Amino acid sequence: MTTRRGFLKTAAIAALSTSVIGKALALSNEHPNLFNVGHLGEKPKMKLTFFPYELQLRHVFTVATYSRSTTPDVQVELTYDGITGYGEASMPPYLANELGTIDSVCAFLARAAIELEKFNDPFMLEDILAHIDSMDEGNAAGKAAIDIALHDLVGKLMNQPWYRIWGLDPAKTPDTTFTIGIDTPDVVREKTKECVDLYNILKVKVGRDNDKEMIETIRSVTDLPIAVDANQGWKDRQYAIDMIHWLHEHGIVMVEQPMPKEQIDDIAWVTENSPLPIFADESIQRLRDVSSMKGVVHGINIKLMKCTGMREAWKMVTTARSLGMKVMVGCMTETSCACSAAAQFSPAVDFADLDGNLLIANDRFEGMTVVKGKITLSDRPGIGLRKL
Amino acid sequence: MTTRRGFLKTAAIAALSTSVIGKALALSNEHPNLFNVGHLGEKPKMKLTFFPYELQLRHVFTVATYSRSTTPDVQVELTYDGITGYGEASMPPYLANELGTIDSVCAFLARAAIELEKFNDPFMLEDILAHIDSMDEGNAAGKAAIDIALHDLVGKLMNQPWYRIWGLDPAKTPDTTFTIGIDTPDVVREKTKECVDLYNILKVKVGRDNDKEMIETIRSVTDLPIAVDANQGWKDRQYAIDMIHWLHEHGIVMVEQPMPKEQIDDIAWVTENSPLPIFADESIQRLRDVSSMKGVVHGINIKLMKCTGMREAWKMVTTARSLGMKVMVGCMTETSCACSAAAQFSPAVDFADLDGNLLIANDRFEGMTVVKGKITLSDRPGIGLRKL
Repeated sequence: MTTRRGFLKTAAIAALSTSVIGKALALSNEHPNLFNVGHLGEKPKMKLTFFPYELQLRHVFTVATYSRSTTPDVQVELTYDGITGYGEASMPPYLANELGTIDSVCAFLARAAIELEKFNDPFMLEDILAHIDSMDEGNAAGKAAIDIALHDLVGKLMNQPWYRIWGLDPAKTPDTTFTIGIDTPDVVREKTKECVDLYNILKVKVGRDNDKEMIETIRSVTDLPIAVDANQGWKDRQYAIDMIHWLHEHGIVMVEQPMPKEQIDDIAWVTENSPLPIFADESIQRLRDVSSMKGVVHGINIKLMKCTGMREAWKMVTTARSLGMKVMVGCMTETSCACSAAAQFSPAVDFADLDGNLLIANDRFEGMTVVKGKITLSDRPGIGLRKL
Repeated sequence: MTTRRGFLKTAAIAALSTSVIGKALALSNEHPNLFNVGHLGEKPKMKLTFFPYELQLRHVFTVATYSRSTTPDVQVELTYDGITGYGEASMPPYLANELGTIDSVCAFLARAAIELEKFNDPFMLEDILAHIDSMDEGNAAGKAAIDIALHDLVGKLMNQPWYRIWGLDPAKTPDTTFTIGIDTPDVVREKTKECVDLYNILKVKVGRDNDKEMIETIRSVTDLPIAVDANQGWKDRQYAIDMIHWLHEHGIVMVEQPMPKEQIDDIAWVTENSPLPIFADESIQRLRDVSSMKGVVHGINIKLMKCTGMREAWKMVTTARSLGMKVMVGCMTETSCACSAAAQFSPAVDFADLDGNLLIANDRFEGMTVVKGKITLSDRPGIGLRKL
């Protein structure tokens, strides 16, 4: 009983309001005759339910400022006419301002559940998702969870995976990068050895004092191409370009966010002088940011949790391509739910960093997989999940 | 027999090559055992057939430089696994450089029919249409015909109309403009009277000496909003902006292509000073042109025959919106086939000029209709056609 009440406290506000209060309201507005409940002619409604789900990381995750072994996450289900779409909000704490927290996202989803009752056709993705977006300034991860669940649902209603609905060739998925965490040379060497037969491209976080040591250690084991993410770590543009030239000579193939997002002119200068493609990550969140990055970077990193989901992500791909920009897809630590959602448009990108589901110990789904380093799409409809 | 041979001469090259030669080639490559023909495991292939179809105009069509009573057109059918998608190429002669002619488009379609045999999955729209596009610099209308037929086919395979696949609300279709042709005041007055109860917005071609007379004549009959298309007719920017101010005072709501496309700086100046939204038509053909028009005009006119079809049109909508630009959809004189294809994304536009099918006497299809002036989408799958 206590457990049940704990669950209710954070999550079931929505289930309650949509199934009881929401229905009563709907009836009073549209079906004055209470005996209409459940009759044959009643249109099905969308029901949103959700619950917090703490992701257990296989290894401690370290970025410049802190370490952690879990990621806050909310799992979402959107049911319509007997079909359920799955969605997910992953909220690494350092991105709480943009993405939200467990509390803020659950509160947002509770409000959204009531709003979703107003739409009786899940196919109206544009209107539904514009309305959901308009409900709040932040909580991008909560918006993404709804977007992903809605896409999964609509794909299932069409009995097609989204890569097919979008007209993409599943054979054209890219290799995913796999991140070698910053550590002592001995550990890095060991980790690299474990990876070389499983992946075709590695990723390294740079922007610290030991960048060259990290790369040289990996290079002592393998010649595999490497993508680097500086996470805004280089503050001086001459230092950045010197590093990029050095990296270029050591088989690095692309650079993410070389400098702080505020230093736009410096990033543009680095891009102009770089022998490697430069991608924006922290510099970009949503569709509205894409065109302003034209001429500043070569490409953009699209992450579902930041951009509010698959519909906006696909618009970002289209816009970036039409502006002659490159595109990569990234992720947070997240289950196969959100990773498989992002993988749907991966045949249209230049680089993919979709290893989030490989980093957690308590995945709930089987979906996209990594086969010999290559993203491999399921042929199941929607976002292609099978619940574990 | 003569008739049949005449038909074969222009059109059936493709049918011949795909069904006989193409099949033989396919067999020799993929199925060395000739007994495999038609066996159960053989994947279906796409078959493209087409024939010239002269559109009969209900009224003589007059633009600045000439008049005509027919429009050259090619009708296309793409069949896969027993399902047929319909497409169309309409080629007003004054646009032959961009769109092609009956001869060039039929020659293009004959080559395309063989290329289409190489794809055994119509869902791979991105690859298929990129390949078709790469076959030729011109013949945009031929490319559009294939794109439309492929969308109709794939929509039918998914059993959904494209506005649903694109996530749009069919209730949000705009009113279509209906063009009042340039004529004597008496005739214009009569024509306007016939239109006022059928349409909610009119369109007038301007850019001649009698612009004010035309508008004043229509205004003597109705206060309906009017869209004007100057077709590059104003050569002086001060004259253009003076006219636009006058038009604004007379209830005109938008202006298409005020000045020649070469005069980009003048158009940008007019846009900056205009009280009415300015749309590019002749200035824009395809996706690659959209971002260059940002800051030059407020919006773009998207026409399937110019932009090579629905897939590129939808990318243009997405790109224009992400750049903060307005969008309208236009058409040529064409059957309900191409008009209904364009109507699929009309819930996402600001203005629509989809009266092409209303102007011809020999339509082959029922599809989108105009009900009390508003574009009304069929709920049939694909582009929503019923063959007449």
